[in-house]
Amino acid sequence: MAGILYKCHTCGREFKRNEVRYLCPVCSQEYSPGMPLRGVLIAVFDYDIIRRKYKRSAPDWNLFTAVEKKFFPPFQVGGTPFFRSHSLGRELGYENLWVKNDGLNPSGSLKDRASFLVVAEANRLNEPVVVTASTGNAASALAAVCAAAGKKAVIFVPYKAPKAKLVQIVLYGANVIPVKGTYDDAFKLSLAFTASRNGLNRNTAYHPLTIEGKKTVALEIFEQNNFKVPDAVLIPVGDGVIIAAVYKGFYDLKMAGITRKIPRMISVQAESSDAIHQYLLSGTYHNALSPSTIADSISVSVPSNAHMAKDAIEKSRGCSVTVTDREILDGQRILALKTGIFAEPSSSATIAGLRKLRQSGSLDPREQIVLLITGHGLKDIDAPMKDITIPEAIEPAIENVPLF
Amino acid sequence: MAGILYKCHTCGREFKRNEVRYLCPVCSQEYSPGMPLRGVLIAVFDYDIIRRKYKRSAPDWNLFTAVEKKFFPPFQVGGTPFFRSHSLGRELGYENLWVKNDGLNPSGSLKDRASFLVVAEANRLNEPVVVTASTGNAASALAAVCAAAGKKAVIFVPYKAPKAKLVQIVLYGANVIPVKGTYDDAFKLSLAFTASRNGLNRNTAYHPLTIEGKKTVALEIFEQNNFKVPDAVLIPVGDGVIIAAVYKGFYDLKMAGITRKIPRMISVQAESSDAIHQYLLSGTYHNALSPSTIADSISVSVPSNAHMAKDAIEKSRGCSVTVTDREILDGQRILALKTGIFAEPSSSATIAGLRKLRQSGSLDPREQIVLLITGHGLKDIDAPMKDITIPEAIEPAIENVPLF
Repeated sequence: MAGILYKCHTCGREFKRNEVRYLCPVCSQEYSPGMPLRGVLIAVFDYDIIRRKYKRSAPDWNLFTAVEKKFFPPFQVGGTPFFRSHSLGRELGYENLWVKNDGLNPSGSLKDRASFLVVAEANRLNEPVVVTASTGNAASALAAVCAAAGKKAVIFVPYKAPKAKLVQIVLYGANVIPVKGTYDDAFKLSLAFTASRNGLNRNTAYHPLTIEGKKTVALEIFEQNNFKVPDAVLIPVGDGVIIAAVYKGFYDLKMAGITRKIPRMISVQAESSDAIHQYLLSGTYHNALSPSTIADSISVSVPSNAHMAKDAIEKSRGCSVTVTDREILDGQRILALKTGIFAEPSSSATIAGLRKLRQSGSLDPREQIVLLITGHGLKDIDAPMKDITIPEAIEPAIENVPLF
Repeated sequence: MAGILYKCHTCGREFKRNEVRYLCPVCSQEYSPGMPLRGVLIAVFDYDIIRRKYKRSAPDWNLFTAVEKKFFPPFQVGGTPFFRSHSLGRELGYENLWVKNDGLNPSGSLKDRASFLVVAEANRLNEPVVVTASTGNAASALAAVCAAAGKKAVIFVPYKAPKAKLVQIVLYGANVIPVKGTYDDAFKLSLAFTASRNGLNRNTAYHPLTIEGKKTVALEIFEQNNFKVPDAVLIPVGDGVIIAAVYKGFYDLKMAGITRKIPRMISVQAESSDAIHQYLLSGTYHNALSPSTIADSISVSVPSNAHMAKDAIEKSRGCSVTVTDREILDGQRILALKTGIFAEPSSSATIAGLRKLRQSGSLDPREQIVLLITGHGLKDIDAPMKDITIPEAIEPAIENVPLF
């Protein structure tokens, strides 16, 4: 661990681990509120050491973990199912389609991985309070891990956040502060809190270990895929942290000489929340003007990690696609029907994306493709409820049962 | 597999595997509607063969599986977290407390294990339709596994079942038939359906492989516990199938000479739904008169597997306890606060039970105790929602943030 450096994604400057905590001190000065973050830090490992220590017969993934194991909170993340779905593949026209179901993390989303590592870091720093701004999965993930670790979680949410989302957070004993304003207001307030009061700030991408935590899903896919790198990974993209993190996981494996290639990162965004998609197309960044999608986990006007996400897609020779809410709901249904997985709308966007890419011929249907499911469908039952019909009740006699 | 017999729990008669499908043909004739099942079948393995084939270094649990692997549906059940919780143990006064979180099965409950094996059996029998009566977890589990397996699920539900519960089932493409009547009416109609139309009936305990599927959680606990048998397992008890199944798993291990003891089975029921508890106390069975508890998964008037559940508790020298809804909600909060696990109310009843047993001194606080979490908290957010307070919103300025 001693060998880890942080490298600024914007300017490339390197810092020792204990010199900086969040963003690059130089580039973050140029940060304007309401724009993507600048100066997001990337953890750089001593890949020569990893190369020497790594054993193919019994791989130790802690070689790639930025916080020592002794600081880990008592909370089991990961180890989620990864499997080939012939029936979904047939439905969508892909021969070798795989699913990684990260909705089966304890709090119901992939964000447990980020919260786990940031709370481990809080243990290392002897910091009893961890702070975040969020409306959804990141907040419940942080609340869950903090509960298990005996830490105080302070969570700023926009006051319009649906009550159901708050149940999990409050039950975990987190301090929730509803803010009369937008997510951006909550974000700024969380920064003011950690600057003037106390606590470690876990805001996504703002704390570099959110990326390092999320990257573990890539290491897990590699191991579960019998130590082979798939050809492409489809990822629901909101703020751009998960796609950057999956890239980072495969990048680390390559840098350590364990693998030779990085899968193509394929971004799927909702049509109205397409800032990263447009950034890729035009090369110039603009905020999404009025995000409004049923897939709330990827509904974002200002994706905090837009620059790194664009890089991950371009460097992996990936691509980007957008989908409508109608396509997302159809994707959710198809995923459930063909695999038995009930995923939240954002994760279902990847199924819709895969369909579009089949039509446009952008993906070779014989390649090994992985769909990353990031959140559990039970997180949001209102979305599909609008779209289904429950049959009329019958009197209890066999002759009233319709023929199927 | 060829050596498997079915043995009647009521009369002890043995049947060849393909002679019977559901209950003992003799004892089930004495079954009265509105009473627990009679003639539930127990799978009997050739334990000598298992003893010879079992390898401690690389145990093959399929030795204990009543359906060959080639018939398994493409659906990953089990492999859920099992861990020691020091903080929950400290809170409740137990030194060696462990948690098995089976709410992290794909459809959100332990019932995936039963549905998995019954659908495997449907594959073996070339049966394209699987039928059940249920209002909750068993229904969504069957719908999920049938979706993955490409089978038709036919599910009878009482028409008063909450709509939210139906979302998952309908999304998975199951044929749902709301019945104007009670669960008992739905149960009878499901039997009429499989008798006069078609399909394999998956009703819990009625199909013996529901018990065999659920028992896999015991094999998993044994393996995850470093091949040791814990001292006691606390189980939320409604119809009595899960507790009978956990017993069966440890019984099989003992019969095969792999282990020497069976953990004490400790039943936790809701106060108003305590038929099995009363049966144990008095020795005479009576239905629970008016079950009304927030823990809907264990709310049952007529526990279908009451006889076998009583046996499991008595033969393992276990015990039984009942808890109030207030205690269940407190248990849910304590579990969330100390472990980061959000469990549904029924599973939270075990925490309440553990507290009571500490007060009465019925459990040795130094023994290894396992809490079995059977369902995900996201299955029912209404229950805790009534019990929590969400703070008032503030204007977005740091001076408005309360001190913690």
